[in-house]
Amino acid sequence: MQTEGAAVTVLGLGSMGSALATALLAKGLATTVWNRSPHKAEALTEHGAVVAATPAEAVAASPLVIACVLDYPALHTVLDPVADALAGKTLVNLTSGSPEQAAEAAAWARRHGADYLDGAVMTTPPGVGSPEMMFLYSGRRTVFDTHRTTLAALGDPLHLGTDPGLASLYDAALLGLMWAALTGWLHGAALVGAEGTRAADFTPVAIRWLGAVSGFLTTYAPQVDAGRYPGDDATVDVQIAAIDHLLHAAAARGIDTALPGLLKATMERTRAAGHGSSSYASVVEVLKSAADAR
Amino acid sequence: MQTEGAAVTVLGLGSMGSALATALLAKGLATTVWNRSPHKAEALTEHGAVVAATPAEAVAASPLVIACVLDYPALHTVLDPVADALAGKTLVNLTSGSPEQAAEAAAWARRHGADYLDGAVMTTPPGVGSPEMMFLYSGRRTVFDTHRTTLAALGDPLHLGTDPGLASLYDAALLGLMWAALTGWLHGAALVGAEGTRAADFTPVAIRWLGAVSGFLTTYAPQVDAGRYPGDDATVDVQIAAIDHLLHAAAARGIDTALPGLLKATMERTRAAGHGSSSYASVVEVLKSAADAR
Repeated sequence: MQTEGAAVTVLGLGSMGSALATALLAKGLATTVWNRSPHKAEALTEHGAVVAATPAEAVAASPLVIACVLDYPALHTVLDPVADALAGKTLVNLTSGSPEQAAEAAAWARRHGADYLDGAVMTTPPGVGSPEMMFLYSGRRTVFDTHRTTLAALGDPLHLGTDPGLASLYDAALLGLMWAALTGWLHGAALVGAEGTRAADFTPVAIRWLGAVSGFLTTYAPQVDAGRYPGDDATVDVQIAAIDHLLHAAAARGIDTALPGLLKATMERTRAAGHGSSSYASVVEVLKSAADAR
Repeated sequence: MQTEGAAVTVLGLGSMGSALATALLAKGLATTVWNRSPHKAEALTEHGAVVAATPAEAVAASPLVIACVLDYPALHTVLDPVADALAGKTLVNLTSGSPEQAAEAAAWARRHGADYLDGAVMTTPPGVGSPEMMFLYSGRRTVFDTHRTTLAALGDPLHLGTDPGLASLYDAALLGLMWAALTGWLHGAALVGAEGTRAADFTPVAIRWLGAVSGFLTTYAPQVDAGRYPGDDATVDVQIAAIDHLLHAAAARGIDTALPGLLKATMERTRAAGHGSSSYASVVEVLKSAADAR
């Protein structure tokens, strides 16, 4: 199995860490694994993983060390005692956290002579290993380029920039988009479900509609960057009138109205800021600053 | 221009009604138009439209009458005086409104001997005429099938079912998804924008991510229909932990937190309902009933 390619170490074998190790092994990469509770590591030996007894042994085994643990305190518990052993190696940190935590970890790695990439996994564990799934990285471009082929075993690696906090900032922004879209979809499913339509019938239409919505994003992105929002397709005023139909339809069926209610209030704040005749992209103007700071 | 195909009348020439008439004319269909203020109709004559002087004249001109006016009161103002002239014709109503208003209009048309389809235009006026754009219709299937070829001049016609209220119910549900997704995207653009990333750079990644999110919808739709939500990819508990990163990242940059705050509160209601270990699809359980009704 492990006949070619660079050696990789994976620290942390939760469901995501285990998926990462499995994807590396599937590509024939020599993979050493370590986990706080060893039974999760044992399960990977049948795929060819080498189990390290300690973090020190795991770090020593490979020039590339991928960490995917619960949080940053757990990361430091594992790595602080073996920090000096990281000198000359590359640490790829896929632990979830804030941009500030990523920047601190990058500085910590630099002090110990290690190269550092921060990363964010934009899929669930079952999606790891698929070339369609995005893995976001930030840090020095040369470090990314050196390990790109190995990282491609996990998914499609995208380099966002040198600032190590960018991957987790994008991660937060994209998860926010996901939760908003998922909740909007579930609200729609509840609404049509109240009249007997199955989610399985509504969803293909919703997915096709998200394709059209993606077209609106492409139209609106340059407006956001320019700070000018020509309302020649549909204005905020028009959307405010339209969302009343949703609020009434939901209320008439006893469906929760908190999400459309908040969306309408956000549109009304946008209109109050002078953007009634602007496109929906002008909503970004009220999102740019906290409500209680205005 | 108007050498073949069925004759169509368009009542109402706002930006959407004008786009509808233009798309029909572009397909060579004999198109009669009427608008309360006649100058908008004159602009279409250069594309070959016949301008009717009155609603009665407009209705008499074609077996298929498409209405797209401001709202239902405006619809009745135009059509009530000429109701008897609709006998034997088909009224396709693309006026925005509630499912209840659509059902009333369908009953009104039936009383006057007219066939009726309710419809919803799932694009902005510039998108009308593109075969990629969805036009949703509800009402008797045979009526839809009779006029399908003509309606395909406007976009891709989808028949949702016999209940005339379905098109506007889907419209409300899909617009709710759109506003949620657009606002989630704008919030993300504001977040990465605070660190100097352009929306034009963030958006292609966001669009690709929406493709992955569409995959989650396909996974979750059968869970919604079954009322069972196995959390083997990612649980509500995991999402609640993750959204704190978004809230902190937004607050640290002075970005509005109302939307992620509401999403977190909705997840916490879902956990309180016993779904901490369920998938995100279980959020539908708390959306199914109004918050103040629980």
